[in-house]
Amino acid sequence: MNHAVILLSGGLDSATVAAIARADGQELFALTIDYNQRHQVELDAARNVAQFLGIQNQIVLPVDLRLFGSSSLTDEIDVPKDVPKDQIGRSIPNTYVPARNTVFLSLALAYAETVGAREIYLGISAVDFSGYPDCRPEFLTAFEQLANAATKLGVETSGFRIHAPLLHWSKAKTIRRGLELGLDYGLTWTCYDPAPNGLSCGRCESCSLRLQGFREAGVSDPLIYEK
Amino acid sequence: MNHAVILLSGGLDSATVAAIARADGQELFALTIDYNQRHQVELDAARNVAQFLGIQNQIVLPVDLRLFGSSSLTDEIDVPKDVPKDQIGRSIPNTYVPARNTVFLSLALAYAETVGAREIYLGISAVDFSGYPDCRPEFLTAFEQLANAATKLGVETSGFRIHAPLLHWSKAKTIRRGLELGLDYGLTWTCYDPAPNGLSCGRCESCSLRLQGFREAGVSDPLIYEK
Repeated sequence: MNHAVILLSGGLDSATVAAIARADGQELFALTIDYNQRHQVELDAARNVAQFLGIQNQIVLPVDLRLFGSSSLTDEIDVPKDVPKDQIGRSIPNTYVPARNTVFLSLALAYAETVGAREIYLGISAVDFSGYPDCRPEFLTAFEQLANAATKLGVETSGFRIHAPLLHWSKAKTIRRGLELGLDYGLTWTCYDPAPNGLSCGRCESCSLRLQGFREAGVSDPLIYEK
Repeated sequence: MNHAVILLSGGLDSATVAAIARADGQELFALTIDYNQRHQVELDAARNVAQFLGIQNQIVLPVDLRLFGSSSLTDEIDVPKDVPKDQIGRSIPNTYVPARNTVFLSLALAYAETVGAREIYLGISAVDFSGYPDCRPEFLTAFEQLANAATKLGVETSGFRIHAPLLHWSKAKTIRRGLELGLDYGLTWTCYDPAPNGLSCGRCESCSLRLQGFREAGVSDPLIYEK
């Protein structure tokens, strides 16, 4: 079996990618970043998804991106609610965390080199979040080139590959593929701004995209929402 | 004044680069990574150098790279001593931390975007550490391309620049430049494996390169060594 690192957040996308990588025959090493996101419930979801998929190796690494501020995912900035559907993903939203995917992929690269893995999987999508610069194919290509210049393993083999299978998939397609692979989406977490009672809000950009995806896939979301 | 981020480790090289960047007229934002290096005294050195240079903004960010293991800088692996001088820098040494400079530059990029800086300075050298893949010009070029693809500021301006002024300098040249700029090298720290009494060992690869640099520069090192 090949070794592969998966950036596993506990969200719907990275859980689906983990299931895809497993179906590809990869032995997975999961890296979950605890960046003091406002929604700590994501970390529990990441652990539950790893267990569900039989992933033996998981590191939960604290990196306090709050120190850098300026995102509604880590600061006390209001998460936008009820954004008109045609506006979602059209500009860089205030949930953007500066250089987040660069930091995460760099840590995944360090983990990969340590365990002798040359495959790195992550669940970014250029469809849902076209406004995030680090969710675009150009970003992935640039990172792959960097990985092969930056590491002992990369220089010796030119073999690092970044896999983002969802890059051009709709959320509905992602959900259908995950269900085919037997994934339990009730274990995942999506909401950027849970209600005080702990339920998903159903109204933030992230919830809206998820709910729309389930509607388009023609299946019901196993999560319970505040409204 | 331009804003610039400096990766400040407390070592001789990054202290010199900070002095150079200050002389360039940059307003500096220092990022010091606490990666549970065995030599915690480095962090004190980084704080002292920042204070000496009048740097107002410094973040000390914990990132526990020990989780990834496999380097003598973070593990209980013996640091090599008394390496023959002609062997230094010829292969990838066991002090190599997987993807370290990639992780550090990614965090610097996050900090830079947060404070609106497009200049990032770091003290790597292709002369002293040619064996480290992430101390080569190819690595810096690849990272600059990544930075301009990965961030809002980079996409909007294509303006990120990575400055590694020491890249082709000998240690002696670095020391002479730092002394011209009034730097106090007694505040810096270099040793990979300090003696139990807290003094620099004088025999590890890092100490050897430093001592050789001072000899070649024709000045005495203000640090006190075990032998």
